[in-house]
Amino acid sequence: MQKLTIIKIGGNVIDNSENLHHFLQDFTALEGPKILIHGGGKIATETSAAMGIEAKMIDGRRITDIDTLRVVTMVYAGLINKNMVAQLQAKGNNAIGLTGADGNIIKAKKRPVKAIDYGFVGDLEESSVSSTMLDSLLKAGLTPVLCAITHDGDTQLLNTNADTIASAVAVAMSSVYETHLVYCFEKKGVLKDVNDDATVVREIRASEFEGLKADGTVAGGMIPKLHNAFEAINKGVAAVYIGKADELGEIEKRNFGTKLLR
Amino acid sequence: MQKLTIIKIGGNVIDNSENLHHFLQDFTALEGPKILIHGGGKIATETSAAMGIEAKMIDGRRITDIDTLRVVTMVYAGLINKNMVAQLQAKGNNAIGLTGADGNIIKAKKRPVKAIDYGFVGDLEESSVSSTMLDSLLKAGLTPVLCAITHDGDTQLLNTNADTIASAVAVAMSSVYETHLVYCFEKKGVLKDVNDDATVVREIRASEFEGLKADGTVAGGMIPKLHNAFEAINKGVAAVYIGKADELGEIEKRNFGTKLLR
Repeated sequence: MQKLTIIKIGGNVIDNSENLHHFLQDFTALEGPKILIHGGGKIATETSAAMGIEAKMIDGRRITDIDTLRVVTMVYAGLINKNMVAQLQAKGNNAIGLTGADGNIIKAKKRPVKAIDYGFVGDLEESSVSSTMLDSLLKAGLTPVLCAITHDGDTQLLNTNADTIASAVAVAMSSVYETHLVYCFEKKGVLKDVNDDATVVREIRASEFEGLKADGTVAGGMIPKLHNAFEAINKGVAAVYIGKADELGEIEKRNFGTKLLR
Repeated sequence: MQKLTIIKIGGNVIDNSENLHHFLQDFTALEGPKILIHGGGKIATETSAAMGIEAKMIDGRRITDIDTLRVVTMVYAGLINKNMVAQLQAKGNNAIGLTGADGNIIKAKKRPVKAIDYGFVGDLEESSVSSTMLDSLLKAGLTPVLCAITHDGDTQLLNTNADTIASAVAVAMSSVYETHLVYCFEKKGVLKDVNDDATVVREIRASEFEGLKADGTVAGGMIPKLHNAFEAINKGVAAVYIGKADELGEIEKRNFGTKLLR
């Protein structure tokens, strides 16, 4: 099986143009077919503020109301995605920027209203990702750049967590490729001491995840990130790493970052 | 040669959700491979206003400064394009929304600064459109939906007139398909009396264009539109029509609208 590399980056890379330039250079230098998945960043918050749209929160959870959906569609699928594609093109990487609606690549389901109405948030299902369509784009020599917008197949765009998209895309592509998934963020990996980059946990087995949550090594936003990462590894993705965006070239090659194991 | 239909729609269709729904239904019903090209509409102006960005005009010409470019990238490539794709998907049309940067489909050149600095406006050249990439998307069963954003290949996104894009795409695709181009707008075609839809000029030959400009039948925004339309027909496009968006299904079939002839 041919190797396919899937990289997820978050807002911290996108918000700094110099970081983004270096990251996209390293991404372009990766050998073989690849897919980039990106989240939002401060730009969505700033654009909302500029338009007088307040962030809606219920019990500390962000709500995607119709105004927020409009802003994230503009910012993720338009401003961020297309500027990233233009930059990749300039580096000789034939990128194509997409939402889940394009080519029906990711069909999500609007999150059911229970205790909280999250608004226009899309959850993924087993069959959400079209590996066939992504593969035909890769075969055409293209590098798909996916943003965190999906659709329900019935005209509605939906906001979907980019870490979850990365995991689901990696799982779906594992039927066609030896898929490697790298979550890039601002730290060097999972850290024993969150303030000390020298304390990277080099490997975590699925069986150790609960223990690391219990002792506080994995806390906050790292819990859902690792949950998505283990979902991937447990469902057939060949390798999953968590590391620092500006070390992308080294994470897999020199075993920088945290490697997840079954 | 297989037939390919290329449709251009303007802001007047996009601004009205009911019109848009009917148009996309008619568009989906067209047989064979097709490409949709869309302009902006009031949404860009409204979004600019909501963000406190003033439209810049010099000598009555709209200028795309950096703030305006950000807004059109958000609105054209994000909000309008992706909502249109989601609606086409719901109608069973496997649409893929693109700018010229995606797949390097349209590489433009920033307009040189002469008497007026138009800002981030991209002009097209002979080799701007990649018919190969568009054809490989069509062959994958996709319907490209192109917005009026291009790039210069050197990281810069550019704002490009959608009528011009439609003409250039139609010309480029003529090497691979028997290409039919339809410009849809709010009138039934070129009208002898601009206020009377019953006065449609059924056919215009390239040789008649200058005369129609001189006698005022073709005036204002119709001049560049017809210029683009004749460019297409003179450079190998099999058929070019100008008609009303809500009559899309009839323009070619029942010879509604204005047909241009070499």
